[in-house]
Amino acid sequence: CFQCRYFTAFLAYGGSNLVLAAAAAAICAYIAPAAAGSGIPEVKAYLNGVDAYSILAPSTLFVKIFGSILGVSAGFVLGKEGPMVHTGACIANLLGQGGSRKYHLTCNWLRYFKNDRDRRDLITCGCAAGVAAAFRAPVGGVLFALEEAASWWRSALLWRAFFTTAVVAVVLRTLIEFCRSGKCGLFGQGGLIMFDLSSTVATYSSPDLLAIILLGIIGGIFGGLFNFLLDKILRIYSIINERGAPSKILLTIIVSVITSMCSYGLPWLASCTQCPEDAVEQCPTVGRSGNYKNFQCPPGYYNGMASLFFNTNDDAIRNLFSTGTATEYHMSSLFIFFVAIYCLGLVTYGIAVPSGLFIPVILAGATYGRIVGTLLGSISSLDPGLFALLGAASFLGGTMRMTVSVCVILLELTNDLQMLPLVMLVLLISKTIADSFNKGVYDQIVVMKGLPYMEAHAEPYMRHLVAGDVVTGPLITFSGVEKVGDIVTALRITGHNGFPVVDEPPLTEVPELVGLVIRSHLLVLLKGKMFMKEPVKMSGSFVMERFGAFDFAKAGSGKGLKIEDLHFTDEEMQMYVDLHAIANTSPYTVVETMSLAKAALLFRELGLRHLLVVPKTPYRPPIVGILTRHDFVAEHIHDLFPSLNPHNFHSASMGG
Amino acid sequence: CFQCRYFTAFLAYGGSNLVLAAAAAAICAYIAPAAAGSGIPEVKAYLNGVDAYSILAPSTLFVKIFGSILGVSAGFVLGKEGPMVHTGACIANLLGQGGSRKYHLTCNWLRYFKNDRDRRDLITCGCAAGVAAAFRAPVGGVLFALEEAASWWRSALLWRAFFTTAVVAVVLRTLIEFCRSGKCGLFGQGGLIMFDLSSTVATYSSPDLLAIILLGIIGGIFGGLFNFLLDKILRIYSIINERGAPSKILLTIIVSVITSMCSYGLPWLASCTQCPEDAVEQCPTVGRSGNYKNFQCPPGYYNGMASLFFNTNDDAIRNLFSTGTATEYHMSSLFIFFVAIYCLGLVTYGIAVPSGLFIPVILAGATYGRIVGTLLGSISSLDPGLFALLGAASFLGGTMRMTVSVCVILLELTNDLQMLPLVMLVLLISKTIADSFNKGVYDQIVVMKGLPYMEAHAEPYMRHLVAGDVVTGPLITFSGVEKVGDIVTALRITGHNGFPVVDEPPLTEVPELVGLVIRSHLLVLLKGKMFMKEPVKMSGSFVMERFGAFDFAKAGSGKGLKIEDLHFTDEEMQMYVDLHAIANTSPYTVVETMSLAKAALLFRELGLRHLLVVPKTPYRPPIVGILTRHDFVAEHIHDLFPSLNPHNFHSASMGG
Repeated sequence: CFQCRYFTAFLAYGGSNLVLAAAAAAICAYIAPAAAGSGIPEVKAYLNGVDAYSILAPSTLFVKIFGSILGVSAGFVLGKEGPMVHTGACIANLLGQGGSRKYHLTCNWLRYFKNDRDRRDLITCGCAAGVAAAFRAPVGGVLFALEEAASWWRSALLWRAFFTTAVVAVVLRTLIEFCRSGKCGLFGQGGLIMFDLSSTVATYSSPDLLAIILLGIIGGIFGGLFNFLLDKILRIYSIINERGAPSKILLTIIVSVITSMCSYGLPWLASCTQCPEDAVEQCPTVGRSGNYKNFQCPPGYYNGMASLFFNTNDDAIRNLFSTGTATEYHMSSLFIFFVAIYCLGLVTYGIAVPSGLFIPVILAGATYGRIVGTLLGSISSLDPGLFALLGAASFLGGTMRMTVSVCVILLELTNDLQMLPLVMLVLLISKTIADSFNKGVYDQIVVMKGLPYMEAHAEPYMRHLVAGDVVTGPLITFSGVEKVGDIVTALRITGHNGFPVVDEPPLTEVPELVGLVIRSHLLVLLKGKMFMKEPVKMSGSFVMERFGAFDFAKAGSGKGLKIEDLHFTDEEMQMYVDLHAIANTSPYTVVETMSLAKAALLFRELGLRHLLVVPKTPYRPPIVGILTRHDFVAEHIHDLFPSLNPHNFHSASMGG
Repeated sequence: CFQCRYFTAFLAYGGSNLVLAAAAAAICAYIAPAAAGSGIPEVKAYLNGVDAYSILAPSTLFVKIFGSILGVSAGFVLGKEGPMVHTGACIANLLGQGGSRKYHLTCNWLRYFKNDRDRRDLITCGCAAGVAAAFRAPVGGVLFALEEAASWWRSALLWRAFFTTAVVAVVLRTLIEFCRSGKCGLFGQGGLIMFDLSSTVATYSSPDLLAIILLGIIGGIFGGLFNFLLDKILRIYSIINERGAPSKILLTIIVSVITSMCSYGLPWLASCTQCPEDAVEQCPTVGRSGNYKNFQCPPGYYNGMASLFFNTNDDAIRNLFSTGTATEYHMSSLFIFFVAIYCLGLVTYGIAVPSGLFIPVILAGATYGRIVGTLLGSISSLDPGLFALLGAASFLGGTMRMTVSVCVILLELTNDLQMLPLVMLVLLISKTIADSFNKGVYDQIVVMKGLPYMEAHAEPYMRHLVAGDVVTGPLITFSGVEKVGDIVTALRITGHNGFPVVDEPPLTEVPELVGLVIRSHLLVLLKGKMFMKEPVKMSGSFVMERFGAFDFAKAGSGKGLKIEDLHFTDEEMQMYVDLHAIANTSPYTVVETMSLAKAALLFRELGLRHLLVVPKTPYRPPIVGILTRHDFVAEHIHDLFPSLNPHNFHSASMGG
């Protein structure tokens, strides 16, 4: 029967989607849960100094690449751009730690990135490369890394990121050239410019400007709402996802079925339209991509909604951006498509599949841009395709709150320099409006995941506190020559990563701060078992003969020594070890009466992990406490000072 | 006679140039000597924290605007782009200090930028606006401000700079629209894209890549050489210019005469060429701008060298970039033009006229790019016009060492996105090669002018020193409640801007550091004459009742109080004043044993002006010394430690 054939087709379509989705969710849930989602918030937190476990591990990289391929193939409303940024960061991390020891892929000459800053720089370049590859936008990649990803920025880093994306551009260009003859499917299409609009000459007048301001306002409101709803949905999803891998897979399957039903079912609502006489492209479309999908229509007719729904996301964007096709889509088709994409984009992000937000946001934005353009067709002379571009810009500005990078990425995507002032205007308006509601979507996810992100500015309430106020807990200090047992106990019972070293009489006349030792260096020293029977100071060179600089280099994530791995005899526990050689003798310090706001600025701008608080007056122990990232987090400060102005505190919590 | 008429024409041409040049030099030498040159190095130093006198004063602004107009009109080989950046910075400064009190142009609502950081941000935005206006490149403007001008960068600043340039773009666009009908001379021409190349389809192959690598190498060598020679010439010029205004004017006149002779004389060396049959433009050119200047040739012929020399700089660039005109210029014409522009660019920069380097550099680069393109015409399929663009990129990379911003500026100038990978490649090569010779041209000028610029990175030799090593001179500290006479004497005999305040017994039990007072705040307090007969501590609120926050706000450059303006009776000199209320009680401090490299990093990253050095051990005065910007300068450290490794020191000196 007639209906049965369509139903069988749906089963085949939905079934393949479901299998692909389940496979993506399975590898994600079982191998690397950290690979779910966009990855941009996590990379952003890493570059801020939060070493979250396994965010950049090789297993995450594997799942990110294949999960993303499976996820995109499954027809979800999600993008590959965010995952490509995360992939770039993972590859950079792998290179930076000299390959993976676990998988026996090591490379000695790659081991020169053994400190925090170099590794962060490398990962920033990885992010830039990811964006450059995803959008074929090398300059946009540099700007994305600068505006969204990186927390610290140096002139040298700008130049390195630029170098990276230049290489990406040349490689991409070569591959595209190689694939131009159609050897690699859709890859070679469009060249470096994915959605070419350059043929359109844009001249605009005052009514156009008004329309664009309206578009900016709509973008700001929809963007703010999107972020608000996404936050709520992610909180619900996190409850489901916490139940374990089967729940994650089930949720993914449900979303997959809904998506399949939308993309196969909704086009039936649209009526068939006769092909325009003057269509530039073939109508109806033959093959995979094109403006005029035939779907269920008779020959010579096309189904506008199917051109949007029953298509790859990239092709749907290309169709929305296409100019000279003002009457192609019915208003109702566009409206239904917008609502469906907006909702599907919201419910898809939190599932256990690598998923980017760029594509859903561009799709939804382009759709309402085209709606506005069609509605205002009588008063504005701009093409609906250009309105779609501006709509995409406004929604990107409203959700992600990036300005320069979105502007350049859109410029490089569409090659439409004439539109630049309008794109800038619409971005400014939508960002300003959305900023009055809530934070950008990535910042919001960082907060939701509880990552201790340090903002660039200090919160206002910090001005009323001093550094000494937030120092808590019993401070554990070591002597310059300390008993092994004490060190081992301290390392076992606490999770601290930094310990002040204080020389005490009889080594010095008065107690004196030597510096700071960090856990990983202590472990290396303990493993070397250079212990002494008596507490005497050794010469520093003696230690350096025994160890090389590489021994103290920062290990890859999760690969460092652990105190549980070391075992000591009772005799060894009674011996002494000299900490002078491994102590950082120039730790950054603040006086206890230093304003907390200024201490936070110091901590953030210099990218510290520990900040020592020293007493203001003499005749006291030479160290008051240690500040770490967690001591600057709003929740921690609120616990200590519940009396702080709650309104200030609320805004702080939002900003923390 | 025939020759006489040409000679009269030369006199008229050279004479007008000379009068305009003399006028430019006169206003520059007599009104604002600081307006000479590009202004970018000075703005860069200001944004680094060097408050050089009158760099951003209203008189400088005036001379910069009119001097630049006169200088460009005089036919010099110089650009208006650098001066426009400086102009933007001056206007921003004027707005930031709430107008000019000297010229009775004040505005109260503009007085909210009364601290260093806000004013610096505003001036950074001014720079961005200047570039955006000069090149009609809004995104390029933001990137220029980020890559070249600013020393500190925050996410909020990116967004503000973007806002500024968006406004510039919209205003420019409106003015161009208004001028399109030719009401404003050449202004409306070309729209937002000044040198449109978008019609050219660029496909390139491996031989093209080799040609481009060659171009990058040439650019690096020529760029390094240009910087080297410019440094030498500027040192010679500075001796001449130091002799006073008449010498400056004379030097300018000499350069003007040479320039006039070159642009009028050299075209005579070229033979006339017959107009091509298939020329897109009218040939020979009618009117002011065009590819085919008639000059002395008979009708139907044109003089290629005159099209380059006897033209505005902008038109010469447009002619060089023009595509489809491969055989337009003789090789010899291009070669002579290149040598002349290279040398004229070098001798023009140091004269007492506002002069930018972008235009000479783009001109020279485009010329040798076209030469290379013509020479390699047999093996490369790229148009010589595109080679000219790549040549300009390579020379910009070789002299200015900017990457991302040059790339985006060129993209926005030419609208040629397809060339982006090639432009990136050529920039990378030329910058890398030139960096092995010397520093970027702006950095070099900053060093030559002796401005204490703080580099983002600490020099290697600083690792061998500690903060206490470089503290010099007798330290002047004040008591919390200090005698007026002592303060006045200290302010009179020293030029210091910051003084530590130390509470001593009997006010406290032991000597204790209160904080830091700065000169301008002390002067405000002294002017208020809130003196006491006895040394007792007052309540802070008492001071705050008397003064408003505005009284302590940072004054405009050169407008603050001076100690010479204040007069005190003998009785007042014996009285006391309480400094607690105006002291900054949270100054940043380092321990004297802190590595100098880390102290420099702290100083630079936080944008400090004073850094207090505190003792490591108790039982000593609570303050060891104060570090300022000058204490980190290589020369100062070299004076203190002549024994430091001279090789290290040499590289330090280059980088300092």
